[in-house]
Amino acid sequence: MQGRRRGRRPAGVDTRAALLDAARQVFVERGYDGATVRLIAARAGVDPAMVNHWFGGKEALFAAATSIPVDPAELVDDLAAGGLDQVGDRVVRRFLAVWDTAGEGRLIALIRSVSSHEESARMLREFISRLVFGRLTERLGVDQPELRAALCGSQIAGLGMVRYVLRLEPLASADHDLVAAAIGPTLQRYLTGPLHPPDPLHAPDPP
Amino acid sequence: MQGRRRGRRPAGVDTRAALLDAARQVFVERGYDGATVRLIAARAGVDPAMVNHWFGGKEALFAAATSIPVDPAELVDDLAAGGLDQVGDRVVRRFLAVWDTAGEGRLIALIRSVSSHEESARMLREFISRLVFGRLTERLGVDQPELRAALCGSQIAGLGMVRYVLRLEPLASADHDLVAAAIGPTLQRYLTGPLHPPDPLHAPDPP
Repeated sequence: MQGRRRGRRPAGVDTRAALLDAARQVFVERGYDGATVRLIAARAGVDPAMVNHWFGGKEALFAAATSIPVDPAELVDDLAAGGLDQVGDRVVRRFLAVWDTAGEGRLIALIRSVSSHEESARMLREFISRLVFGRLTERLGVDQPELRAALCGSQIAGLGMVRYVLRLEPLASADHDLVAAAIGPTLQRYLTGPLHPPDPLHAPDPP
Repeated sequence: MQGRRRGRRPAGVDTRAALLDAARQVFVERGYDGATVRLIAARAGVDPAMVNHWFGGKEALFAAATSIPVDPAELVDDLAAGGLDQVGDRVVRRFLAVWDTAGEGRLIALIRSVSSHEESARMLREFISRLVFGRLTERLGVDQPELRAALCGSQIAGLGMVRYVLRLEPLASADHDLVAAAIGPTLQRYLTGPLHPPDPLHAPDPP
């Protein structure tokens, strides 16, 4: 048993690391949709079945490659399950639960990476726009899905910056109820509400 | 004339650079309010009048030290001038005008610095929370000024991340009217609206 474990673990760890390296390269080169499990496995020099074995699938491999501690498919399932009602509130609470647990250090490292490497920026962009909010708007069946996804990304990324990176009070230590009450309605409008004001307010003349 | 210019310019450039260095140190050590012009000038080894001469005052020196291309005092004057009506729209348009002009490279450098150095994070926090949105909420005379300021900071920082760093479309290339229509109402609510839902919506039981 001991011998078997000794022989196996390093190989497994190597396979996992090789897959992460290959995934980062292939996702950057081809985008999320163009990067197939087969291509990533070939680049890593392992069998495609290893992706399922080590990560459970392409989505979770992508999340691991970006160091984001969440499986986007599960996340979108959870968020979409309740329908349109209070979905903004659920998005905010889920974001806080994930990053309060993961620790600010991990988010700071992600933002540093994104602002230092164009490849990291491209991967986070795919993650936010396609895997999370793109899927969520699709599941909710709303109009203007790309704009809604980008708007959600802007408020959620900014909440992360202010709470975990800048540590701006009172948002840095506010409990989840307060943050959800203040920011949930913003996400709710970005996901389900009107994005342009009605015409009377649109008049460009100052009062 | 030539001799005078040669003798003067390097000294002036040195004075300006010394003031910027000293300002970064003293602002980080003491915060914005604790950092006096006298202290900064003493640290730089120059006369306090040089702060006005080179920067026009403490606020503009702070902005220069953070590399943010805006004088916060002028900015708040402009934003507050129109009162509560459409102030969210004005905040969004002004942010876009400043950073579309300055170029994304400058914002990316700022965010990299903030996520790499605790001192930069502290300075940007002071800038957002006190010099811009803290002053603005004060001028507008609204309740819960700290929370409102932090909420505004979260949406504006996130807009910067998504438009200039991640370049997430359609927000990355959207014209100012579209961005102001979509995000202006968020800033408007954060600055002037109710931050907690009315009691009936507050009920924790799912429908």
